[in-house]
Amino acid sequence: MNSHAILLISCHDQMGISAKVTAFLAKYKGNIVEIEQHVEDDKFFMRARWSLCDFELKRENIEAKFDDEVASYLTDAKFQFFFTDTKPRLAIFVSKASHCLFDILSRRSSFPMEISLIISNHDKLEPIAKSFGIPFFYLPVTKENKAEVEKKQLELLKENDITLVVLARYMQILSNQIIEKFPNRIINIHHSFLPAFPGAKPYHQAFAKGVKIIGATSHYVTEQLDEGPIIEQDVARVSHSDSVNELIRKGKDLEKIVLSRAIYNHINHKIITHKNKTFIL
Amino acid sequence: MNSHAILLISCHDQMGISAKVTAFLAKYKGNIVEIEQHVEDDKFFMRARWSLCDFELKRENIEAKFDDEVASYLTDAKFQFFFTDTKPRLAIFVSKASHCLFDILSRRSSFPMEISLIISNHDKLEPIAKSFGIPFFYLPVTKENKAEVEKKQLELLKENDITLVVLARYMQILSNQIIEKFPNRIINIHHSFLPAFPGAKPYHQAFAKGVKIIGATSHYVTEQLDEGPIIEQDVARVSHSDSVNELIRKGKDLEKIVLSRAIYNHINHKIITHKNKTFIL
Amino acid sequence: MNSHAILLISCHDQMGISAKVTAFLAKYKGNIVEIEQHVEDDKFFMRARWSLCDFELKRENIEAKFDDEVASYLTDAKFQFFFTDTKPRLAIFVSKASHCLFDILSRRSSFPMEISLIISNHDKLEPIAKSFGIPFFYLPVTKENKAEVEKKQLELLKENDITLVVLARYMQILSNQIIEKFPNRIINIHHSFLPAFPGAKPYHQAFAKGVKIIGATSHYVTEQLDEGPIIEQDVARVSHSDSVNELIRKGKDLEKIVLSRAIYNHINHKIITHKNKTFIL
Amino acid sequence: MNSHAILLISCHDQMGISAKVTAFLAKYKGNIVEIEQHVEDDKFFMRARWSLCDFELKRENIEAKFDDEVASYLTDAKFQFFFTDTKPRLAIFVSKASHCLFDILSRRSSFPMEISLIISNHDKLEPIAKSFGIPFFYLPVTKENKAEVEKKQLELLKENDITLVVLARYMQILSNQIIEKFPNRIINIHHSFLPAFPGAKPYHQAFAKGVKIIGATSHYVTEQLDEGPIIEQDVARVSHSDSVNELIRKGKDLEKIVLSRAIYNHINHKIITHKNKTFIL
Repeated sequence: MNSHAILLISCHDQMGISAKVTAFLAKYKGNIVEIEQHVEDDKFFMRARWSLCDFELKRENIEAKFDDEVASYLTDAKFQFFFTDTKPRLAIFVSKASHCLFDILSRRSSFPMEISLIISNHDKLEPIAKSFGIPFFYLPVTKENKAEVEKKQLELLKENDITLVVLARYMQILSNQIIEKFPNRIINIHHSFLPAFPGAKPYHQAFAKGVKIIGATSHYVTEQLDEGPIIEQDVARVSHSDSVNELIRKGKDLEKIVLSRAIYNHINHKIITHKNKTFIL
Repeated sequence: MNSHAILLISCHDQMGISAKVTAFLAKYKGNIVEIEQHVEDDKFFMRARWSLCDFELKRENIEAKFDDEVASYLTDAKFQFFFTDTKPRLAIFVSKASHCLFDILSRRSSFPMEISLIISNHDKLEPIAKSFGIPFFYLPVTKENKAEVEKKQLELLKENDITLVVLARYMQILSNQIIEKFPNRIINIHHSFLPAFPGAKPYHQAFAKGVKIIGATSHYVTEQLDEGPIIEQDVARVSHSDSVNELIRKGKDLEKIVLSRAIYNHINHKIITHKNKTFIL
Repeated sequence: MNSHAILLISCHDQMGISAKVTAFLAKYKGNIVEIEQHVEDDKFFMRARWSLCDFELKRENIEAKFDDEVASYLTDAKFQFFFTDTKPRLAIFVSKASHCLFDILSRRSSFPMEISLIISNHDKLEPIAKSFGIPFFYLPVTKENKAEVEKKQLELLKENDITLVVLARYMQILSNQIIEKFPNRIINIHHSFLPAFPGAKPYHQAFAKGVKIIGATSHYVTEQLDEGPIIEQDVARVSHSDSVNELIRKGKDLEKIVLSRAIYNHINHKIITHKNKTFIL
Repeated sequence: MNSHAILLISCHDQMGISAKVTAFLAKYKGNIVEIEQHVEDDKFFMRARWSLCDFELKRENIEAKFDDEVASYLTDAKFQFFFTDTKPRLAIFVSKASHCLFDILSRRSSFPMEISLIISNHDKLEPIAKSFGIPFFYLPVTKENKAEVEKKQLELLKENDITLVVLARYMQILSNQIIEKFPNRIINIHHSFLPAFPGAKPYHQAFAKGVKIIGATSHYVTEQLDEGPIIEQDVARVSHSDSVNELIRKGKDLEKIVLSRAIYNHINHKIITHKNKTFIL
């Protein structure tokens, strides 16, 4: 399969942006495979993917040329280029629950990603990591050592050139020293249909409330707990006859699927974040 | 179609309740058509529906016989009998939005119910009521006259032997003088996936939050706004490209379907309420 | 609300089509509100919607200018322009079931459409038509008079400048003399998840098969019964405890929603048909 | 957790069956935890689950006592008892696709089951089996050796006391010599919404047809290919922009979830089969 380039761009909305971008790609013989745009709050957002097969610009020159010929004519333009043959490098944070971890690992060969390491505050899932041949770091967290452990975690992320952190039911709250280093690059799965039931024990909350549908939400992690931009959600129908344990059982399947879809969208560079929302383009 | 009887019963959970109830029905040749039970908080809940065709007890004697032969042996038993040939009588409260009203009216001949009257604080939907031949009462509500209007509303409900009040996007908050007269007999439709986005303008809240799924919730009305027992919920997938108006448009279809399902369950005596939850049996 | 123009175009896929189309719109100050494209079978398909507010071409000149400046440079280009202030004119064909008809009529003021007339082979729904003030034509069909009745139907469609025919559970098979006059302009609702259960009594087929999910399918009518391009589908979960009548009851809500979504997409010019498929752009 | 007993019973429908069964359980102090019944074709079907904690009959005597005191009074009664502390023993048949296998293996500790062995006609997934410590039998099938291989497979199933065979995308058609030995004890996952798209390459069929929703179906295997009793189905929304590969990718998540739900229902003895349908009780 030949390589593709992906452009994510945002700028102040004005007449003719699409025309400028597509003219640029046509000029250098970039055959557009996917293109989608969105306008909100007087801002314009676009994602374009094109084949590098006949593309006449060298990778290292694309950015400068684009800036020169397109972006400099737009107001407040911000843009990024990605190439499909550069695989994102993931670190997965887990605790004791294995369902999300298994699900991500089972996609290793089908998703364009490199799973570099697994970090956990418990050693329970270490055998799984081993059986998949992935380095596992057991870093138990206590109130006292939290800052220190996070420093160690940050070192591991840095050493391994991690571009995406996945909290696969990690059950610990990250502090800002990590979050601010990975803006919109930490994905969490919350086991409720946010904004319903944030915080602890959402299935117990759902059971007590008597909802007829449960959900799961994957989102980018920000400083506000369970408040970051939502990437993906899904739901399952339940009834009064489902105990809390049944909700947990049914919810696990939601969690793993919803988390994987978020990872898929992120590593395929389909997500633009604006304010506290995501646009999946 | 021959008539059926329906029993709703709750009592303290103990061994042999099912056996007692089904033995009673078998003794008098009541052929059970539907039976469902549920246990929660050490309480037992059951709904049974049986044909009156060969049933050997007269309607007027069922309650006393059941009390004598079954309920008196159970702890804290509460029970009610309903007959499928006695149609519930509905009052529908509306404001300006027509979609839920149309949907309920279109089910007039397929649902076992009598729509007795429509009450509104606006006269906009009066022509619809007229075209369906249903009495329409235009009772505009202001801060000043609210108590007085509710008194008039209560009179209308009483005069017409109303057994179920449906708030079909009424947009007004009923006061306790009405609510306490109709415990678990006022159904509201809220245009969000409760407990997310209670209160005003839930689609605007959903848009601002960037959720990927919207919902609607039908529930019994209690003194706490949007907090009553949830009867039914459903959801629809949306995306960043849906404007608030698109959410409203898509949500309308959810609202009308979710409200109608709640009405259907209520008028078929399928709902038992316990604490703040419903069991649909 | 100001008026918009909509372009639907297809052509052989080649480099730079997007650039050409968007440059054309930018040149004449057409501010693009929506644009989507799709490539399949080496063909390129696009829908664009833009505001006519500052657009510098007169409506009557758009087509010629576009042909001259864009389409003539593309291979096998086919294109059409629509304007949002020109409302499609609908004829609704019904039989005895009222749920789809009610649902369409209830959207009269919210959908951009003109419901010009209702045609039926039964007079059962005439009172509904009357209460909405829409001309109703009772044209009973028999084996003997079918050709003659269809001739009369065609006359009515012509006289009323009908642009979209909706079969809202019409239950009759149209012959080719009508179908070929309205290519991709007759929408039918079939009460199953096609291609499962085509033909008669799909709910009975679904019950006999024991499926766990039922569906409804709206599609354009072609000469092959229930084989035309699918526009929209939706499903509902059922269980063994649902009788055929329950499937029919639950299915009715699917049918009306799925039919209305198809109508919405058609009258907003969002559908391009290619081979036997639809692209909803 | 204490052990429970489960009764599955079917008989000719007659007055008082529920009463008889529940009286029997009450007599011996079996506290009913779940009970559900269904009537179809003049036959009565029931599942009951009760705690063995205070139950006064010894396991080995339950069947005879039940026959004597209940079943002998019913017409055409067939019944079976199961105990929750006796784990079903599974054999999983796979080919090259790993997603369903991974999903089942990841549930090893949460589902009440023993995964005894994995059989495959390819050796590709052997490393996965090894990493989970489960015996893997590589038995390549050709036209010539098929009968012989199936004989070997049958021996393995017999030696290992297998009670449930799971075809987790096995891609081979079993012959009757195996099927008739495991009536309603072989579960297959078919990657379409049956009865739509039976046979080979259902996603390609779905793409060609242009459906707006894809599905997956788990069913018991019978002699008629893809025609056995449906256990569970689920669906996912797709659009024209999804390529065949996208359908395959999205479908994989459906397949694994739908297969796991079928396994869950089977190993919890929730399924009664009647004619070509399942009742999930």
